Amino acid sequence: MTRAYNFCAGPAALPAEVLEQARDEMLDWQGRGLSVMEMSHRGEAFMGIAEQAEKDLRELMNIPDDYAVLFLQGGASSQFSALPLNLAGPNDPVDYVNTGVWSRKAIAEAARMADVKEVASSEADGYAHVPDPSQWQTRDNARYLHITPNETIGGLAYNRFPEAGNVPLVADWSSAILSEPVDVSRFGMIYAGAQKNIGPAGLTLVIVRRDLIGNAREGTPVMMDYAVADKADSMYNTPPTYAWYLAGLVFQWLKRQGGLEAMAERNRRKASKLYSFIDESAFYANPVNPENRSLMNVPFTLADDSLNAAFLEGAEARGLLNLKGHRSVGGMRASIYNAMPEEGVDALIDYMAGFEKEKG
Amino acid sequence: MTRAYNFCAGPAALPAEVLEQARDEMLDWQGRGLSVMEMSHRGEAFMGIAEQAEKDLRELMNIPDDYAVLFLQGGASSQFSALPLNLAGPNDPVDYVNTGVWSRKAIAEAARMADVKEVASSEADGYAHVPDPSQWQTRDNARYLHITPNETIGGLAYNRFPEAGNVPLVADWSSAILSEPVDVSRFGMIYAGAQKNIGPAGLTLVIVRRDLIGNAREGTPVMMDYAVADKADSMYNTPPTYAWYLAGLVFQWLKRQGGLEAMAERNRRKASKLYSFIDESAFYANPVNPENRSLMNVPFTLADDSLNAAFLEGAEARGLLNLKGHRSVGGMRASIYNAMPEEGVDALIDYMAGFEKEKG
Repeated sequence: MTRAYNFCAGPAALPAEVLEQARDEMLDWQGRGLSVMEMSHRGEAFMGIAEQAEKDLRELMNIPDDYAVLFLQGGASSQFSALPLNLAGPNDPVDYVNTGVWSRKAIAEAARMADVKEVASSEADGYAHVPDPSQWQTRDNARYLHITPNETIGGLAYNRFPEAGNVPLVADWSSAILSEPVDVSRFGMIYAGAQKNIGPAGLTLVIVRRDLIGNAREGTPVMMDYAVADKADSMYNTPPTYAWYLAGLVFQWLKRQGGLEAMAERNRRKASKLYSFIDESAFYANPVNPENRSLMNVPFTLADDSLNAAFLEGAEARGLLNLKGHRSVGGMRASIYNAMPEEGVDALIDYMAGFEKEKG
Repeated sequence: MTRAYNFCAGPAALPAEVLEQARDEMLDWQGRGLSVMEMSHRGEAFMGIAEQAEKDLRELMNIPDDYAVLFLQGGASSQFSALPLNLAGPNDPVDYVNTGVWSRKAIAEAARMADVKEVASSEADGYAHVPDPSQWQTRDNARYLHITPNETIGGLAYNRFPEAGNVPLVADWSSAILSEPVDVSRFGMIYAGAQKNIGPAGLTLVIVRRDLIGNAREGTPVMMDYAVADKADSMYNTPPTYAWYLAGLVFQWLKRQGGLEAMAERNRRKASKLYSFIDESAFYANPVNPENRSLMNVPFTLADDSLNAAFLEGAEARGLLNLKGHRSVGGMRASIYNAMPEEGVDALIDYMAGFEKEKG
């Protein structure tokens, strides 16, 4: 068996060590004679798995005790609805910054449920930069201020976070959570779909300051009420147990790697290599303002779009998979999440250099 | 490795063959060099997996073409909200039959969203029977009539279904779907959480007649709108891909077993053995009206509750797991879903007979 280097934006590559453990435990977890996915979520074995995962995540991210950590069903798109339903009334002001496709999706859904204001946008330059927080037209009475620290499609990332005063800062961190340390206490809520840096699709983490929850509006679907989930330790109904278990294995893997400081160092090195190569080339280009470039998602174009198909074909033949850019922007995109080893980035650069030499 | 006989009500046992295939493909699906859970949901490989799963399900259940088959995030509890949001307005009449814990949960959630009427109930006799449909106080103008064909906790099952006239019949079939053939055309909608007879927790199937959808009320969370899901082939956002893949493996396993007719025959034989043994014993008892006994969930009590702990301990020691009854009803419960082999039921009966002989 040869493992490919998988640059998919999500569902994304997972650490081989994690998959090997999952494989080995598939039919018989620790001699119990059954798979984790066959366990009662209320049994002692799975409860132990679930609690350990939360404990490890709290340790990795240094999450303060007054924050709930919820392991919820579905993806971030469900939180686009749950967020305004939990934190705002139907006519309450909620502020959003527009930095790309995922910001826009969050905004569109919230606009159906609250008084949304787009307080800043970089749409005019094709999302090449993050608007300067000092210029944002925020409202002091907003129930929250929503940002997208890493835009998966545009490859745009915040390099600093605004002071939001008394307005809780809420972040959709789906595509960069766990890639570097973050000061959770600066945020009212952080949420993230699992399928980039956490585990398989179908699980979403919500990290929310407890004083913000408990006031979901009337008619909020019970499965979207954060207070209900918190009170039930994310087991109001049967949670996605196997995804939760895999997330726990990823958290343990991260701890073995040295935690988020070590991951950040490795991620910066990987991204820096790739961006430097692109910048030094006259054949490849990345459109993003250098100080807002994502460490996780590296979109790039070839000098000649007609070579895209040949580029992808040659890459696949070398086991460099899923480099095609998102259909909304075209070109290429290399997603280099935590699980992408540095050797994968080296192999990509090597291939890119060869392709340029041959076709450029 | 020894596989236990796992009688868990859910998440429940899966066929060993399915888990073996998942194990073997964990790091490298069909030579692609990556796990199914690492694949783009929009890539050709996963799209093939997804389409095959839907095709196999349609074949197994003989689902008419005018029904959408949706592979949704989460469990049946999310559908308790989504159902009234999609099929009824805020003040519209919706009828529910109360046959146990899961009926009550569906009713409680719908009551927050529509004008719910409990049209029949067997609560008075502790849910020992299904109320006779000829006595139901249904409303001709109801937007739908909701039933729970198999109550997981009470072990109560419908043995025939009402004629609902023009009112669409909606069924939460979570704990008995795929256990026997069903005439889908008699229902407006069937839904089922995966973690009993389909696959791992975190996936829910919704089978709905297309003329009933497309009118979700204003403010319905986008991820709960059936028409949005249908239009996007259940990929409006990233679906729970690994659960979908496992469901597909289960569908293929069911086809290899001979389909739902063959499963029904096997399930009836398994259940009949166990109920006969219980009925012939003076030590064990099942409270359900014989004609409404579930083929999937068999609750039973011991003549002396103080022996429960010893019964469970002895069972565990023999690899007969998760026989403890639900906390709301006590006693024991053997869930004998599709994946429970007949030998498992035989082993349970053998143990029960020995225990009775020793302690009865």
